[in-house]
Amino acid sequence: MEGKKIRVGITHGDVSGIGYEVILKTFAYPMMCEMCIPILYGSPKAATYHRKMLNLTTNFAMINQASDAQEGRLNMISVYDEEVKIDFGTPNLECGKVAMLSLERAIKDYKEGNIDVLVTAPINKASMQSSNFNFVGHTEYLEHEVGEGNEALMILMSPMMKVALVTTHLPIKEVSANLTQAKIEKKIDIFNTSLKSDFTISIPRIAVLSLNPHCGDNGLIGSEEKDIIKPAIDSMRKRGVQCFGPYPADGFFGAGVYSSFDGILAMYHDQGLTAFKTLSADDGVNFTAGLPIVRTSPDHGVAYDIAGKGEANENSFRQAIYVALDVWRNRQIDKEAYANPLKIIPRDKGRKDGREQIE
Amino acid sequence: MEGKKIRVGITHGDVSGIGYEVILKTFAYPMMCEMCIPILYGSPKAATYHRKMLNLTTNFAMINQASDAQEGRLNMISVYDEEVKIDFGTPNLECGKVAMLSLERAIKDYKEGNIDVLVTAPINKASMQSSNFNFVGHTEYLEHEVGEGNEALMILMSPMMKVALVTTHLPIKEVSANLTQAKIEKKIDIFNTSLKSDFTISIPRIAVLSLNPHCGDNGLIGSEEKDIIKPAIDSMRKRGVQCFGPYPADGFFGAGVYSSFDGILAMYHDQGLTAFKTLSADDGVNFTAGLPIVRTSPDHGVAYDIAGKGEANENSFRQAIYVALDVWRNRQIDKEAYANPLKIIPRDKGRKDGREQIE
Repeated sequence: MEGKKIRVGITHGDVSGIGYEVILKTFAYPMMCEMCIPILYGSPKAATYHRKMLNLTTNFAMINQASDAQEGRLNMISVYDEEVKIDFGTPNLECGKVAMLSLERAIKDYKEGNIDVLVTAPINKASMQSSNFNFVGHTEYLEHEVGEGNEALMILMSPMMKVALVTTHLPIKEVSANLTQAKIEKKIDIFNTSLKSDFTISIPRIAVLSLNPHCGDNGLIGSEEKDIIKPAIDSMRKRGVQCFGPYPADGFFGAGVYSSFDGILAMYHDQGLTAFKTLSADDGVNFTAGLPIVRTSPDHGVAYDIAGKGEANENSFRQAIYVALDVWRNRQIDKEAYANPLKIIPRDKGRKDGREQIE
Repeated sequence: MEGKKIRVGITHGDVSGIGYEVILKTFAYPMMCEMCIPILYGSPKAATYHRKMLNLTTNFAMINQASDAQEGRLNMISVYDEEVKIDFGTPNLECGKVAMLSLERAIKDYKEGNIDVLVTAPINKASMQSSNFNFVGHTEYLEHEVGEGNEALMILMSPMMKVALVTTHLPIKEVSANLTQAKIEKKIDIFNTSLKSDFTISIPRIAVLSLNPHCGDNGLIGSEEKDIIKPAIDSMRKRGVQCFGPYPADGFFGAGVYSSFDGILAMYHDQGLTAFKTLSADDGVNFTAGLPIVRTSPDHGVAYDIAGKGEANENSFRQAIYVALDVWRNRQIDKEAYANPLKIIPRDKGRKDGREQIE
């Protein structure tokens, strides 16, 4: 694919949130349309409404299919031609339906090879729940639709750190029951592979967090550390993965220990994300590792509180596009590097007289 | 107590950790002995060992009982005259026993009115477990010993924020079952009272965090927000407390929302402490609110990884002493302010002709 621009599929997410605002603000810079071919699966009427209400000048060009997409502009495929009732900050079922149509069309195009990577604007899961979308988030949906049997790993990344989650959108009371040694090993494995092939880190150092306060305090505050997490770390180290821990989350982030690692594996959503968002200003990106598809999204949600006010910062969305492009290129390089391995030529280790040869 | 210096009882905690290091470093500044009367419940041999190994110059004066304590010096009451086997960073049962003796003697003196406030160095709960100490932490022990039936609230504070915890040293899997509407209301109430009387905030604004990711996403990820937390907030608001929420922890800290509140109530240990420690450099203090005793401690633990290396930063311990003094003074002011309330004089609301009087 040398020289050919990467086709970036973009879904508009919940149109009563800040999705269109960050998309349009991102593509207000011509440079963004020059580094890739953006294809937005959108609603022209909703986009125009946002554009007008927020005084944005970004243009978009309507196309019928992904193959019509051109460089140098924001291409849009209409997934819904009707008017959409938009009440900024107030979700409704129509918005949920339109979000779903965008995602479905993008996935269809991905399956048919019409786009290379996917960048998703935030959705409202509650208004999207339907017979077609019975998932707690994008990650779980993509795993099901285009996972090809692979398991996804949610990685939150910024220039400061990469945090991955063993469990994602689970109630706190179900977290412990969802942790097994095998699952943690699997997540460490996916993380390790992703850090290597998606981010070109040759020998990644991975920190694993504890589940319980004070790392379980030697079993006084929970036993998952002893029974599950430590054995998982030990087992993966035996398999050559540079993983360490478990570390208690508060001290790990508070004392800056995180800066010594390429990746941090958190046991549950808020454990990883609270520290991540606190430390990563507005440039956090959510990357779905482990799947054949390269998918990123900004690390914020629909942000109903500021929807329609023009206050949304598009930096996270822009970074999401950069990361998608980087990961796609890194995967190509990785694939090429291992495509034609040199044949292993058995070396003659002995001399004819049977004595060991010293080289 | 105008003019009289406050007597600060200090426990040495685990002597194989950094306790003595931060205590001795703190009292290396003569000013510290001038603003209060420090009484350390210690082991002279352990203290001397730390002093020598770490090249510290802080002196201490042995006394037999608290009433012998003098201003302008670090007073020490010996709780253990024997040698203590100290292997920096490696806990042993003797260290646990010596930590217990220090705490017991300090509490005895507090009960007898010989000290005013208590500042505790970090302990190792595992090595302290015995027939006398069957608690997961200082907070629970103090509640039992000197709580007088009151419930404790753990508050972590720095100049940036005050974070209190509904549940403290609990395994993650037990957190949900330990949350009830009544418990959250009680904690909001204690927090509100403490912010008023201990920190002189006349109308505190309290933020309450959610338990589950994304605030439960309208029930898709857990129902505690709807069933327990929101009703508790509503009920306390009806009682005149300025409390708000629930807020999802990641966005709350990540977007800086915390800066609008006087207090933040977290549902579990790592939720509050991870963000707190990440944002509060080295000046965090743990304050036990809700009890008659004023007790503070640094926000760090025994720090075995740096024990005996001279690298420990004493700032958090010093701040713990400042906070104890401040809270003690604020409580006196609060007590005096409400000691002699003006009598309520019933006002004559009606005129003699029975018509309402307009003033």
